[in-house]
Amino acid sequence: MAFLKVVSLEEAISIINSFRLEIGFEEVTLDKALGRIVAEDIYSPLDIPPFDRSTVDGYAVRAEDTFMASEANPVELKVIGEVHAGEQPSVKLSKGEAVYITTGSMMPENANAVIPFEDVEREGDIIRIYKPAYPGLGVMKKGTDIKKGQLLIRRGTKLTFKETALLSAAGFLKVKVFKKPKVAVISTGNEIVLPGEELRPGQIYDINGRAIVDAVNELGGEGIFVGIARDDRESLKKLILQALEVGDIIVISGGASGGIKDLTASVIEELGEVKVHGIAIQPGKPTIIGVINGKPVFGLPGYPTSCLTNFTLLVAPLLLRLLGREGKIKKVKAKIKHKVFSVKGRRQFLPVKLEGDVAVPILKGSGAVTSFVEADGFVEIPENVESLDEGEEVTVTLFSF
Amino acid sequence: MAFLKVVSLEEAISIINSFRLEIGFEEVTLDKALGRIVAEDIYSPLDIPPFDRSTVDGYAVRAEDTFMASEANPVELKVIGEVHAGEQPSVKLSKGEAVYITTGSMMPENANAVIPFEDVEREGDIIRIYKPAYPGLGVMKKGTDIKKGQLLIRRGTKLTFKETALLSAAGFLKVKVFKKPKVAVISTGNEIVLPGEELRPGQIYDINGRAIVDAVNELGGEGIFVGIARDDRESLKKLILQALEVGDIIVISGGASGGIKDLTASVIEELGEVKVHGIAIQPGKPTIIGVINGKPVFGLPGYPTSCLTNFTLLVAPLLLRLLGREGKIKKVKAKIKHKVFSVKGRRQFLPVKLEGDVAVPILKGSGAVTSFVEADGFVEIPENVESLDEGEEVTVTLFSF
Repeated sequence: MAFLKVVSLEEAISIINSFRLEIGFEEVTLDKALGRIVAEDIYSPLDIPPFDRSTVDGYAVRAEDTFMASEANPVELKVIGEVHAGEQPSVKLSKGEAVYITTGSMMPENANAVIPFEDVEREGDIIRIYKPAYPGLGVMKKGTDIKKGQLLIRRGTKLTFKETALLSAAGFLKVKVFKKPKVAVISTGNEIVLPGEELRPGQIYDINGRAIVDAVNELGGEGIFVGIARDDRESLKKLILQALEVGDIIVISGGASGGIKDLTASVIEELGEVKVHGIAIQPGKPTIIGVINGKPVFGLPGYPTSCLTNFTLLVAPLLLRLLGREGKIKKVKAKIKHKVFSVKGRRQFLPVKLEGDVAVPILKGSGAVTSFVEADGFVEIPENVESLDEGEEVTVTLFSF
Repeated sequence: MAFLKVVSLEEAISIINSFRLEIGFEEVTLDKALGRIVAEDIYSPLDIPPFDRSTVDGYAVRAEDTFMASEANPVELKVIGEVHAGEQPSVKLSKGEAVYITTGSMMPENANAVIPFEDVEREGDIIRIYKPAYPGLGVMKKGTDIKKGQLLIRRGTKLTFKETALLSAAGFLKVKVFKKPKVAVISTGNEIVLPGEELRPGQIYDINGRAIVDAVNELGGEGIFVGIARDDRESLKKLILQALEVGDIIVISGGASGGIKDLTASVIEELGEVKVHGIAIQPGKPTIIGVINGKPVFGLPGYPTSCLTNFTLLVAPLLLRLLGREGKIKKVKAKIKHKVFSVKGRRQFLPVKLEGDVAVPILKGSGAVTSFVEADGFVEIPENVESLDEGEEVTVTLFSF
């Protein structure tokens, strides 16, 4: 059974891309929308501002009435009323008239400019204007900020405070977002116990379960921890069946021991189909991709940094696709700090820590928890490359979602 | 009343720094910890690994028994038992003995090296070893990854999936985090209505309320929207009293109209004390800082970009301090895209959009919703500077928390 279906990374990704899952949508009110991912392009249902709006405190006028104004020969206009913010103006201007108006207020009919207070002299109902106002002075015209029908937010956008505020400004009470893909997570290994349990000799606490669940949460999915499977068929099968009930996607991280890897493939084959067993990358040899009842099942390496690397290469892109965020894996350019050697013919993913734009290789071994914590991402060393030189530019795929 | 207490930005910040608020702590289980902020330095309660651990599948040996091994004269050792992951070894080694061991398993007593399967020959109970093993080969020693008592996570760290995984690996079931500071948010203005309500002529939808609430949420606080105050004393007072009941901090964003600004200051003065009324920056003139019942009250400008700039300069640092994250306002270096003019004697904060490492000034005016949406942050133009030259290096304070 072992390594019967070793494929290239590209083949593995193409198999994953062929998975068709319908996660669906839901509507949430704006106060629950932060961090959610928009399910459709959103267009403005209104002009913003929705009316010609004064941008200063002053007097709304017909600009043409002021064209002759000068220091020597001020124009006099008659103030016929007031408009305050939030009101519909009750007056309309005729030649020679002005209206007192506050910032943000709706322009009265026939007015096309607002002269600031400080630029006029008022005496009773009369204001004196000493220089011409151009049409549009002190006015934000209807729809000049945002036009009705204009694209506001693209499908696949993760809502930050700016987008929720924009949706509010456009009058949306609710927004259609992707449902969170549910990822059911299983850790495996006789040596793994959960935090809070007593640690007996030979045991260690789980790291991958929490890491995958919370990485899924950060990506915009919903991580659900199912449990820790012992290194036996029945234990693993029971947890996979539970995972199928709660998850759209199942992710199993391997225990460190050898036997569990084949066990995982064998149980998946019993319940569904193993599509990939082993990917021609380092780390990734023990990685499994299968399908049970139409649900993708991933078996990832047990060592935390290897687990996270394969999660980032395989599971994260699937999640992002389901959320309309294809290709949103974060990458940055950096220079490698010192020469590192690889093996020709081996396609390696090297964990690195970023210090500014310098990528420092982490050579502690992927079994170390500290490698996992320090690694900001990984660098690919292709098959035909034997070493990366000091200062060589590399692309770092980030462990940051 | 108006602008009686205009101070410099530094004075305003120093007044804010003098506010003493106790927000307190709470314990949350790891599955609720993502995104929360750690309230104390966390040290490892155990060694990781907690025991000498095999890093390969193979045979645990006493290295000294293999020192004479060579291709010509292999050393023979007797296999006296097995250790699997998660077990406490039931055997201990004497001279000339070996134990079958799987990856991740606890080393048996007296063993100090693990020789991989593929490097030995086995015949019945006997293995043949063809080259010497050094002490430590194939072993991760107890505590070499993380030492008991080692600092794991600093106070003030925002927990990502990496830190929650690290806490899991160290056996923590719960983590002590800062309680979320509650920020009660009021919008003001007769023209402002909430999404979902009908928009009548002269009215616009609220933007600042949602923006501040969600910016607070992103910062790690809890934003609570209290409501929209009309431009009258009783309406504003009523909402401020409600805000004081639910919030540790109150943030009021001004309506666009002139009158409301003095109203806000006047109501704060009635209920408590106005400390600052106007900051010598642009935008920021109408900003108010007060205290009611020991709770900080901020009055921010109504224009969204101005509101957000003052929020970032004044409120965000206070929130971060309360969360042990002093100085964690995000800033990046950039080059200004084209020459921009300021006014000598005016300290200006210019909204900019980032395109790579280029900061593009947004000159649409801070009243535009699109300015707010496009602005990635702002650049300070000091009082004694009249212009920024094309390509000049600037520091952009980000609207991103």
